[in-house]
Amino acid sequence: MTDHNEHQHRRERLLPALESARAGAFFTTALPNVRYLSGFTGSNAALLVTPDRALLFTDPRYQTQAPQESDCEVKIAKGPLLPEAGKWLKRLRLKSFGFEQNRISFEEYQQLKSVADGVRFRPLSGTVEELRMVKSPAEVATIRASVQLNSAALEQALDHFRPTMSEVDLAAEIEYRMRLLGADGTAFQTIVASGRRSALPHAHPTDHPIQADQLLLVDMGANVAGYASDMTRTHAVGKLEAKVRRMYRAVLESQLAAIDAVKPGILCATVDRAARQVLRSYGLDKLFIHSTGHGLGLEIHERPRVGRRERTKLEPGMVITVEPGVYDEALGGIRIEDTVVVTSKGCEVLTPTGKELIVL
Amino acid sequence: MTDHNEHQHRRERLLPALESARAGAFFTTALPNVRYLSGFTGSNAALLVTPDRALLFTDPRYQTQAPQESDCEVKIAKGPLLPEAGKWLKRLRLKSFGFEQNRISFEEYQQLKSVADGVRFRPLSGTVEELRMVKSPAEVATIRASVQLNSAALEQALDHFRPTMSEVDLAAEIEYRMRLLGADGTAFQTIVASGRRSALPHAHPTDHPIQADQLLLVDMGANVAGYASDMTRTHAVGKLEAKVRRMYRAVLESQLAAIDAVKPGILCATVDRAARQVLRSYGLDKLFIHSTGHGLGLEIHERPRVGRRERTKLEPGMVITVEPGVYDEALGGIRIEDTVVVTSKGCEVLTPTGKELIVL
Repeated sequence: MTDHNEHQHRRERLLPALESARAGAFFTTALPNVRYLSGFTGSNAALLVTPDRALLFTDPRYQTQAPQESDCEVKIAKGPLLPEAGKWLKRLRLKSFGFEQNRISFEEYQQLKSVADGVRFRPLSGTVEELRMVKSPAEVATIRASVQLNSAALEQALDHFRPTMSEVDLAAEIEYRMRLLGADGTAFQTIVASGRRSALPHAHPTDHPIQADQLLLVDMGANVAGYASDMTRTHAVGKLEAKVRRMYRAVLESQLAAIDAVKPGILCATVDRAARQVLRSYGLDKLFIHSTGHGLGLEIHERPRVGRRERTKLEPGMVITVEPGVYDEALGGIRIEDTVVVTSKGCEVLTPTGKELIVL
Repeated sequence: MTDHNEHQHRRERLLPALESARAGAFFTTALPNVRYLSGFTGSNAALLVTPDRALLFTDPRYQTQAPQESDCEVKIAKGPLLPEAGKWLKRLRLKSFGFEQNRISFEEYQQLKSVADGVRFRPLSGTVEELRMVKSPAEVATIRASVQLNSAALEQALDHFRPTMSEVDLAAEIEYRMRLLGADGTAFQTIVASGRRSALPHAHPTDHPIQADQLLLVDMGANVAGYASDMTRTHAVGKLEAKVRRMYRAVLESQLAAIDAVKPGILCATVDRAARQVLRSYGLDKLFIHSTGHGLGLEIHERPRVGRRERTKLEPGMVITVEPGVYDEALGGIRIEDTVVVTSKGCEVLTPTGKELIVL
């Protein structure tokens, strides 16, 4: 991802949006957007893009790193970045600029207003996020690497699984394997939930020992070269009741049906519906209490949302998760999640891990 | 930290600030502030505190958890929290309320404005952060547990150290040990930097093998029950040049002098000066390019900053880091960091790890 042509190309793709909003420039302080448009990976940055120039603002800690990573003109600010960047709005004689009203704080807005007196503010939230929905081949390759590493980490961690191990210890093992395999860290807090706790969609791992004859749900993602992966697998520790095995089959069938629906030109809502219909046929749709999936990339949750009301049409290069789940307070929860990339004909499942019920 | 009296007491401590700002309520969406005032640990929340009531807004995922963790009135919102919370500003017939202009986005500000038409907005950023500077005995106990766990994790990880191990693998080992010892995760990205890379104050670990006769800097922190720890130790892998050993002595002497200065009533700037003076006597003060320390608690960086210009006076119960460092591009970097709590007479160093140069 250090191909400077790619970053320049991305900035050029911003220009039509600026033109139609009658904005002379685009300004962002959102780090994933800064990284996407400039290549810079530091933790403090702002970026100002005009049709002719791209100015990257950061602090002295990144004096060496910023010009190595980015093709933009680097401006090192000794104090807060916003007043410094704001001065350039005047210096470049801009009459207007686009800003991200959902990313900038009210205080930052006021700071910019006071230094860029007379420059018009055009709300352009979501513009870069829309570009980011469709991934380049290089981005897909990085996400693929992240997904493969994530699967390898689960496999290695499960080799160390033993009943009565605690949820926390399995989570620790998973994250350790990710790191040794080369991840920069996790993409989100690893979920390891056993027994009834698997029915809590956002359970954090506890000291609770993972016991026999229960479900074990693992939802995990790695961060590799800035890109997220995301996978959920639900395992059987020992024997499961017939009712629970039936739930597993329903979720798997639902997930396969949703993947089958992923094609260019199809609405995200249609993919969501495909998952829900299968669960309805099992009488389990009321226990599916979240969306079918979400985009991922530089952030773990990106557009599009694969939900009931999402009117975005799938396009080749979009990368989404497909993750239906069923949560029963008494029996536990089951979720199966893959990451898939939309291709010209349909989609490719990037996640190599098998989905038949694994008995540990 | 599930003592409801403590949360109520904290909310009562907000009231004088509301009164002097002529604000009828306080509103926050900043998760550490929500947690501090309500006990709720979820990832999506808003809190409205009036002299009589405390309303906690969150989404259906936390329906069970929120009332367990918090003594506030829980309001479950199906959609975005802000419009829902905004409606209550009108419903409670508030004439004015305090908001955090540095935490709320410009878009959220606009949303609140549109639903709370006629209610006056009083900027009250930093009010809760000021209360949070002085920790309760229960908070100090949790930070102590976090600091002790962090030191134990370093000790265990170094037992597995071998030369030519990569920086990333040592970081993985450290984070694994933290998790097994019961941490919820890291408080920040672990820094493991060897050789010349130790001179980069924010180096991320690389595949670079840790080689003999070099410095090895480790900066690490755990998150335990919501509270951060933070420690830096610089080790020798094999033999170091006399110049580098002298640098180590200078940094250690500087750190001890700064700790010696920590007392109630003393300005943070005085502690910073104590560290700098020692380094000046060694001719190394120009290589000390950051502040001497910072507060920590629910966040890894909190007030007060222990820097040159910080006029905050230390008070019993404040918890700060003391971490002078010297960075030489040719010789490498050395930093030594402890977490200390201000007591009625001086301070107590919470970090149990020794500070004499350890040769690995």
